[in-house]
Amino acid sequence: MKSINVGIIGIGRIGKLHCDNLLLVPGVNITAITDPYMDACWAHSRQLNVVADAEAIFSDPEIDAVFILSPSTLHAEQIIQAAKAGKNIFCEKPIALDPLRIQEALEAVATAGVNLQIGFNRRFDPNFRHLKDVYEAGQIGDLYIVKIISRDPSPPPAEYVRDSGGIFLDMTIHDFDMVRYLSGSEVIEVYAAGAVLIDPAIGEAGDVDTAITTLTLENGALAVIDNSRKAVYGYDQRIELFGSKGSITAENNTATRSTMMTVEGTLSERPLDFFLERYQDSFRLEVNEFFTAISGNGNITADGECGLVSILIGLAAKKSLTENRPVTVAEIRREYFGK
Amino acid sequence: MKSINVGIIGIGRIGKLHCDNLLLVPGVNITAITDPYMDACWAHSRQLNVVADAEAIFSDPEIDAVFILSPSTLHAEQIIQAAKAGKNIFCEKPIALDPLRIQEALEAVATAGVNLQIGFNRRFDPNFRHLKDVYEAGQIGDLYIVKIISRDPSPPPAEYVRDSGGIFLDMTIHDFDMVRYLSGSEVIEVYAAGAVLIDPAIGEAGDVDTAITTLTLENGALAVIDNSRKAVYGYDQRIELFGSKGSITAENNTATRSTMMTVEGTLSERPLDFFLERYQDSFRLEVNEFFTAISGNGNITADGECGLVSILIGLAAKKSLTENRPVTVAEIRREYFGK
Amino acid sequence: MKSINVGIIGIGRIGKLHCDNLLLVPGVNITAITDPYMDACWAHSRQLNVVADAEAIFSDPEIDAVFILSPSTLHAEQIIQAAKAGKNIFCEKPIALDPLRIQEALEAVATAGVNLQIGFNRRFDPNFRHLKDVYEAGQIGDLYIVKIISRDPSPPPAEYVRDSGGIFLDMTIHDFDMVRYLSGSEVIEVYAAGAVLIDPAIGEAGDVDTAITTLTLENGALAVIDNSRKAVYGYDQRIELFGSKGSITAENNTATRSTMMTVEGTLSERPLDFFLERYQDSFRLEVNEFFTAISGNGNITADGECGLVSILIGLAAKKSLTENRPVTVAEIRREYFGK
Amino acid sequence: MKSINVGIIGIGRIGKLHCDNLLLVPGVNITAITDPYMDACWAHSRQLNVVADAEAIFSDPEIDAVFILSPSTLHAEQIIQAAKAGKNIFCEKPIALDPLRIQEALEAVATAGVNLQIGFNRRFDPNFRHLKDVYEAGQIGDLYIVKIISRDPSPPPAEYVRDSGGIFLDMTIHDFDMVRYLSGSEVIEVYAAGAVLIDPAIGEAGDVDTAITTLTLENGALAVIDNSRKAVYGYDQRIELFGSKGSITAENNTATRSTMMTVEGTLSERPLDFFLERYQDSFRLEVNEFFTAISGNGNITADGECGLVSILIGLAAKKSLTENRPVTVAEIRREYFGK
Repeated sequence: MKSINVGIIGIGRIGKLHCDNLLLVPGVNITAITDPYMDACWAHSRQLNVVADAEAIFSDPEIDAVFILSPSTLHAEQIIQAAKAGKNIFCEKPIALDPLRIQEALEAVATAGVNLQIGFNRRFDPNFRHLKDVYEAGQIGDLYIVKIISRDPSPPPAEYVRDSGGIFLDMTIHDFDMVRYLSGSEVIEVYAAGAVLIDPAIGEAGDVDTAITTLTLENGALAVIDNSRKAVYGYDQRIELFGSKGSITAENNTATRSTMMTVEGTLSERPLDFFLERYQDSFRLEVNEFFTAISGNGNITADGECGLVSILIGLAAKKSLTENRPVTVAEIRREYFGK
Repeated sequence: MKSINVGIIGIGRIGKLHCDNLLLVPGVNITAITDPYMDACWAHSRQLNVVADAEAIFSDPEIDAVFILSPSTLHAEQIIQAAKAGKNIFCEKPIALDPLRIQEALEAVATAGVNLQIGFNRRFDPNFRHLKDVYEAGQIGDLYIVKIISRDPSPPPAEYVRDSGGIFLDMTIHDFDMVRYLSGSEVIEVYAAGAVLIDPAIGEAGDVDTAITTLTLENGALAVIDNSRKAVYGYDQRIELFGSKGSITAENNTATRSTMMTVEGTLSERPLDFFLERYQDSFRLEVNEFFTAISGNGNITADGECGLVSILIGLAAKKSLTENRPVTVAEIRREYFGK
Repeated sequence: MKSINVGIIGIGRIGKLHCDNLLLVPGVNITAITDPYMDACWAHSRQLNVVADAEAIFSDPEIDAVFILSPSTLHAEQIIQAAKAGKNIFCEKPIALDPLRIQEALEAVATAGVNLQIGFNRRFDPNFRHLKDVYEAGQIGDLYIVKIISRDPSPPPAEYVRDSGGIFLDMTIHDFDMVRYLSGSEVIEVYAAGAVLIDPAIGEAGDVDTAITTLTLENGALAVIDNSRKAVYGYDQRIELFGSKGSITAENNTATRSTMMTVEGTLSERPLDFFLERYQDSFRLEVNEFFTAISGNGNITADGECGLVSILIGLAAKKSLTENRPVTVAEIRREYFGK
Repeated sequence: MKSINVGIIGIGRIGKLHCDNLLLVPGVNITAITDPYMDACWAHSRQLNVVADAEAIFSDPEIDAVFILSPSTLHAEQIIQAAKAGKNIFCEKPIALDPLRIQEALEAVATAGVNLQIGFNRRFDPNFRHLKDVYEAGQIGDLYIVKIISRDPSPPPAEYVRDSGGIFLDMTIHDFDMVRYLSGSEVIEVYAAGAVLIDPAIGEAGDVDTAITTLTLENGALAVIDNSRKAVYGYDQRIELFGSKGSITAENNTATRSTMMTVEGTLSERPLDFFLERYQDSFRLEVNEFFTAISGNGNITADGECGLVSILIGLAAKKSLTENRPVTVAEIRREYFGK
């Protein structure tokens, strides 16, 4: 089995996570790594070959695949360059906030005929995958309602919020993708209600910190997502699929399965702290799918289309909140693509 | 302690339930009972005094209080007559589907100075009351989101649906009242999404069988209700209050606390079948509050105003669904009352 | 339907409980009530007819049934007198601590041909009954192990312990009866380990406050009971039946089904406080069976034999602890009855 | 950091598990591996250096540590040889079934001054470790009762049973070690009740398949273990520590946190299948402790003494079952060591 050479662009929090996962994948070598703010000590302890910039990775003929883990604003450009260089591409979400820019990147990928996987890691979470399997096996019958609870443990700083594209493009985007993934159906229309209840600075930055988003799906089912930037009890990630034969719910993961009984009551553990802990399995599994696919043994499910459509839904939600009316995804598509 | 004489109008399913509860309240006598389709055998086994009609009850000076458990279309008229006769009144919901008619009834009650309690029994459910207590004690902090799951085990016949006023006035009305009760805040605006997924006949009757309703509240919080006419696994009645210090959820009641482990997995019991089982405690407790109040020892919380406001919210939801836009309760109020 | 007249002997905590339940049974009249320390105010508020002593109840020809709720030391004598007077008898456990005295009482009952029910109320608990139903329906297959957790919320005073017969005759006796009831099999041998961990005064009174009792059953299965006089988190009453096809467990009842998530973790309610709350349904249901049986429409399952056998098992446990060896129930039977 | 060279003796099911874990430990090289029934294909795919026999490993001066994962009957001899060769030793349990033989091995280890860790992996399970942490932090107060449920999913073949030393030395030995580990106290006395309920062939092989073992501890607390060779619902591994301030229980792990509601009831997943799945984390973590200790940065907690004492308790249980009486560990110690 020929081994696969990988170049990594960007070593922030999520870059380090991916890198440590890649080190454990048999047959994969991390050939080069780059980051303008490289943590040299961290790279050294892993014996990684630090290169000057992304260009050095794209131009290295020995590299088969690149992991684009840089700031979001660079994603589209780096996808385009990597595609031109004939590399297979794993890119963290979002590709871009502007659908036209995403379109350009996807066209470059299509032209080059390379693989592109977007980091919608939650598709690989064993809990959520089990829900999908159960639904697809017909065990809950026809789908009536998809319900997602997606709450962060604490709000980001207001300056982060300002550049994030807002809660729907930054946070709910994962949930929009999960609705599509789990239901196997497209989103038709979006209505979003929002409020600033946690931090006035988030409101001043033009965003909301609490939102309820209702979606109507092509298959007739309804979906509803509730988001909050602050659940003091932990990172709350639950999903229910409710259908004609029953309902299946993914509850939160906890560190242990212990339960304590005291005078206060019966206490079990809080949900895992945040996405690095909660989704550690899914980060590992998404990378496996990527290498399986580029080895020619499978397909990429979290593809570029997912990256585009989730942004279109997010823009519909944003417009819905601003104009206080339901907005179709088709309206957003027309707005950007004229059709 | 002087005993209280009660007249009962209507002995359908819910009439029998209330009647059996009243028989166990110390100091309360059921003096007269009437129903055009009287179940004579049932009344005889309880040694109840059957009278000809509601008029016979209103005109009986020995009767202190009436229970109006007749078909909904008669409620408003019977409230007016009972009020004129100076009786204290317990009336099942809804008072009427038309806000103007409700208004008339409430004015008659006010003029007569009698007590009126509406059968929003869920306010007395120990699970939900505990949520309210915990919230009011400050244990979950400021309120962010109220979430209600309210799903029936099986849909009513389409002919019932046709006369019911639709899902929002017939079914969600309880949930609207719970949002007001638990949050202690008024509903400002409503957006309802609906679908016909269970029974096409419900659609032909002009109604939906699946709905997600988003509410914005005066205190800034958001609320979301999901309704379904058919949850095959039982009567699903869950509520979450999520706030700045935590979240409290009322899970479903079950017949026993047993858990079985087999090759299939770990099985616990399904939710109780329907409202008669699920809310048996709350039906008993609401009646206690009524008698406590008319004995001068307490207040009625599920008063006529609740009956009116829940209908206004329901009409806003109905209009929202029809016109596919958010509708304020103020708009409905203006529509009917011109202000 | 002829009504049944009842006389009640003893109005302590459990007497009041039974009395209030009897007041709600249709067709049952409490004709007379007696207690040397009668709570006159309590009796008056219920309009009960207080008589001088038990004799006045036994000699009243209008009384069909007596409830013997007096101190345990009086039970056997009062059963004998009630039987002689031809009354049907409900008696709280234990009949007596001495098997020979129990035998005398049972013989008097047999001679008189009256009904006798012993207050093993837990047989009527809906959770435990469900376990029995599931087992008898074959759903867990052949029985392997019966496990009982039976822990009180706080220890009784040492002076109570001194006269109680010890933990096995006072507390575990209920669990011994549950093992027989649930398994449908007889206890062959008992091994008890005990310790004084909670209150040295209990040790000084000659008893233990913590015990693990292993039982071997006639059907080959094993049973194990753990008892503690002090579970600070509440009254812990759980039972598991484990068999060849699976396992079924009755978990603790709680006041509500609410679950709160805070920074501390996920908190559900503690078990109900003590036996009056935990077993309120079973106290009500056991009385129904009694009246059904004496009306000729059913059998008494918690009969005098249960009262005797549970004491024999308790004495085997006591001897096992003292002599630190397994003791058969047959050995105890021979000791008292010579066969 | 100098890397550590490891030789592995035995590549059965558990050998492969350890080997794959070792491959992921930074700074550890598997230098040599041997097994008379070597799975050459498996070893080749991992690029492992296969050597002729254990002797080749002991005599290799480059090897720092050996993993003895051979059949149990070889453990003691291989420990002695490895110790003489100055290797640090990780050995699967049991060292031997004969305490004198264990003693010999431990003396060889002491003489050589090498490290020895026994494969009591459950000490490293995050659930159980959390129980120990909570207890040691004083959160449940003084210990009253340790309860262990330890049930296999299906019985081993009778021929395995015949050579296993019986259920107490083969299966309960892990639970005995957990009682010592969690309580931090020594076992004084053992009473074991057993039955053959699952497979008569196990009885013919001189063993039982169902057992309840009661232990008294030096700190005064009681412990009880229930074992079964066949829980059709999966591998059941639960532990409760009950004390003066409360109780903490480790429930079973499951593959996902999903819950399905259907007409059958509310279904969550069965426990993980067997020890390879259930204890995969603990197998990984025990190896970390071993390497940390031999690098001089920590202590071995699962040491040779654990290996000896758990066998002594097992022999006490075996004798207790045979002679149907409680047996002290001191009695077994005297029997073998004369003191």
